[in-house]
Amino acid sequence: MSKKNTLNPVSQELTAFLSEKDFVYGPEPELYGGIAGFYTYGPLGKRLKNNLENAIRTVFNQHGFFEVEYPIIAPAAVWKASGHLDSFNDPVIICSKCASSFRADKLLEEKGEKNAEHYSDQKLIETFKKKEVNCPNCKGRFNLEIKRHSLMMKTTIGQDTEAYNRPETATTTYLPFKHYQNFFRDKLPFSVFQIGKAFRNEISPRQHVLRSREFSQAESQLFVSKEMKTNWPSFKPVENDSLLLWTAEMQEKNKKPETMSLKKALQKKAFQNQAFAWNVWLSHQIFLAMGIPNQKMLLRQHKKDERAFYAEDAWDLEIELNSFDWTECCGIHDRTDYDLKKHAEFSKQKLVAKDEKGKEFVPHVLEIAFGIDRPFFALCDLFYAKRKEDQKRILLQFPPKMAPIQVAVFPLMAKDGLDKKAREIYQTLEKKFLVYYDESGSIGRRYSRMDAVGTPYCLTIDYDSLEKNDVTIRERDSMKQTRILISELSSILQKYSEK
Amino acid sequence: MSKKNTLNPVSQELTAFLSEKDFVYGPEPELYGGIAGFYTYGPLGKRLKNNLENAIRTVFNQHGFFEVEYPIIAPAAVWKASGHLDSFNDPVIICSKCASSFRADKLLEEKGEKNAEHYSDQKLIETFKKKEVNCPNCKGRFNLEIKRHSLMMKTTIGQDTEAYNRPETATTTYLPFKHYQNFFRDKLPFSVFQIGKAFRNEISPRQHVLRSREFSQAESQLFVSKEMKTNWPSFKPVENDSLLLWTAEMQEKNKKPETMSLKKALQKKAFQNQAFAWNVWLSHQIFLAMGIPNQKMLLRQHKKDERAFYAEDAWDLEIELNSFDWTECCGIHDRTDYDLKKHAEFSKQKLVAKDEKGKEFVPHVLEIAFGIDRPFFALCDLFYAKRKEDQKRILLQFPPKMAPIQVAVFPLMAKDGLDKKAREIYQTLEKKFLVYYDESGSIGRRYSRMDAVGTPYCLTIDYDSLEKNDVTIRERDSMKQTRILISELSSILQKYSEK
Repeated sequence: MSKKNTLNPVSQELTAFLSEKDFVYGPEPELYGGIAGFYTYGPLGKRLKNNLENAIRTVFNQHGFFEVEYPIIAPAAVWKASGHLDSFNDPVIICSKCASSFRADKLLEEKGEKNAEHYSDQKLIETFKKKEVNCPNCKGRFNLEIKRHSLMMKTTIGQDTEAYNRPETATTTYLPFKHYQNFFRDKLPFSVFQIGKAFRNEISPRQHVLRSREFSQAESQLFVSKEMKTNWPSFKPVENDSLLLWTAEMQEKNKKPETMSLKKALQKKAFQNQAFAWNVWLSHQIFLAMGIPNQKMLLRQHKKDERAFYAEDAWDLEIELNSFDWTECCGIHDRTDYDLKKHAEFSKQKLVAKDEKGKEFVPHVLEIAFGIDRPFFALCDLFYAKRKEDQKRILLQFPPKMAPIQVAVFPLMAKDGLDKKAREIYQTLEKKFLVYYDESGSIGRRYSRMDAVGTPYCLTIDYDSLEKNDVTIRERDSMKQTRILISELSSILQKYSEK
Repeated sequence: MSKKNTLNPVSQELTAFLSEKDFVYGPEPELYGGIAGFYTYGPLGKRLKNNLENAIRTVFNQHGFFEVEYPIIAPAAVWKASGHLDSFNDPVIICSKCASSFRADKLLEEKGEKNAEHYSDQKLIETFKKKEVNCPNCKGRFNLEIKRHSLMMKTTIGQDTEAYNRPETATTTYLPFKHYQNFFRDKLPFSVFQIGKAFRNEISPRQHVLRSREFSQAESQLFVSKEMKTNWPSFKPVENDSLLLWTAEMQEKNKKPETMSLKKALQKKAFQNQAFAWNVWLSHQIFLAMGIPNQKMLLRQHKKDERAFYAEDAWDLEIELNSFDWTECCGIHDRTDYDLKKHAEFSKQKLVAKDEKGKEFVPHVLEIAFGIDRPFFALCDLFYAKRKEDQKRILLQFPPKMAPIQVAVFPLMAKDGLDKKAREIYQTLEKKFLVYYDESGSIGRRYSRMDAVGTPYCLTIDYDSLEKNDVTIRERDSMKQTRILISELSSILQKYSEK
């Protein structure tokens, strides 16, 4: 769907707020001026990011995937085989007057051109001519020539071994394939995932953590046989679950997306096979687990001209953001046997599995790939709100399970044993929850601080608490206050924080 | 203490085992030949590593530290200020015959020279002459000249901005100092930590994950005033805890390490102040939480000639490994106001705090810094064992809380509803524990497989289980088997797995 590329007023307000409230600082190194595309997760942002990563781990683990951690740096041989060294680059156009460089396709998309990222260099130049696009910096004319700028971040191992910071985790997840044969005892499916950093030397990235030069990725690789694709035991239990789907055909016929069950989607040939449909379902499960509301998500199939030549099918999970409209946040790909074949060819090693008759074949790979920074941004974007009564009072209405602070503990005053009691409660709760202790300022001010960083529950310990062994619990969104017994706190909060 | 630098038979056996059992693969990219110093954490190793990272997070959080995540890549300006660009390098010596390069200090240490890493270039050359050290590869003579090899891994941002993969997390943790002022509301201590990747372009690293070119670090930075150092409220509650200490004085006088309470150590001036003593205590707590046995740990003070010129005090936490003897696994440093002053000077910004009278001062930094790969290796090294009855049967006797698989679930046979029951139990348990399901091979073989990867508890579901709603639980080290009710499984395992 359409994409807004630069920071508009909505996103400017949000990103300033995220910096002020210790979620995301940058661009870094801020202290030394800052370079586009590098961000720090501050004390609260990092907790939110950890919560996201744990949610991802939990869903993958529950579905039989095992995590691995491959190095970030790999030598040129790997990226030659994967194709990144030859073709992972962006089209750049340079201003003839001020010499600034821009990503040609992104400039055109800002001018309303759709899918310019799939244009050939020639088509890009023709569109620049037709639309008479000038330099956004100085209004000068562009040199009508596309240069290819590699996105690979080069480095050196030892004295002279050419190497690169990986541009994606995926390639590095395929490489230990022979070890997976051992770990899964030669029995497909091999199901693995990786969470880690990746690097892309983008030309002038301008969308906060949605497009940074250093980012965190999560992706799963499911190695299957062709037969498994059409006969996938995990499909049946979820076939009646529904997703909002927008097939290539619907897009071509200008039809709207449609909510349908996996079963129906398979019958209508929206999906080619059960295993792929299940992967699309699983990606949606992960985003639900991260707290993204179902009604903000859409699954969009790539049209043929958007797909890599080897990909049999490809879908995006898109999220409708307030600041950037519909934004691609995850890709689900049927990569066939392309990657294993390439690495077998370049490494001159055999990367195969055996069927029941002992016949060797190259497994297919079904992939779910996404960044963690985008769902992070999506949560902040979607749950950023203002009190109806007072537009200056901002609150982040995170689902409690995702909140960086789940419970705040306040003594009414920092004296008369109230602080001691509050600290005791804090210490009991912090074994199970993300807890924050605060004893400074008025209670009202402490509530506001916690609203602004998305804390769903605040507990206040007052003089009555000392006698009755209870606390006041105050809920963020409704601002309702109730007294509950300290003895019941842990189990009540457990229930609340699963939401 | 003394260090063995290369892989001896003990560590060769262990590292081969860790690869075979899917803990650590490499050096990577194995498929393309492999380059020293890069390793992959396989499905079981990654779980163990995650458990370590979670243990670290928990201890830091419980003591008021907040995690941040700064980018891995930072431009030259940062590393100029930190001093890394000018002085983070290793002394290299080159063979005149075969042209191989070696780390000069490490070669000398292998020849029995102690602390050669603190030698000047001149002293290194003199020692080479005196000891008549020749090339380990070809026995040729060395060129008697030290070259300085930078450990920094260089890259480029955009078209031409010189940048580096960070050689440590620490520097990048100081940089958002101004944001910490906001987050901690201008009230010292500011307590932050970071867990993340760091890179060092070592010359021919040869000690498995103990010295790799890409590794994971964890470190805390505690910003304090000078007054806080001598009056640290968290010290009192732990002052009677004891540690095995080896002060610089004891080392110089050839005395053995001594177990003493923090209180006594402070009285004896082994520590200069309460806050530093508490940091040493905290580092020890973290290593206990990671499962390292107390009796395998020693805290050793740096002698004056080992310390950086600005450091007021520095201690190492060392672990006695079976394969490498006493090995430095953590450093605790009083970095004074050195880093903030340097970054203030280079960035031309004010990095100060205010005392109660509003007077500005530069806070001091107390640091705990360690890699995660070393305690990972230490756990594998220390808990690698063989059955008395059969030396071929290897088991990893991990503490249950650290095990990559805490509980394995086996149906006696994969039929007659035993597998269905087993899967039900698996699904209940996997919400709380790291669980593994296995239905293939004899029960004895399944036990052995789990012993070898350190799983403390195996549950078997047999025909009696269907009637009596119970399972057989088998303990790894004692091999004892007991029947317990399924209804009690979760709470019993909870208790067991906290060990």
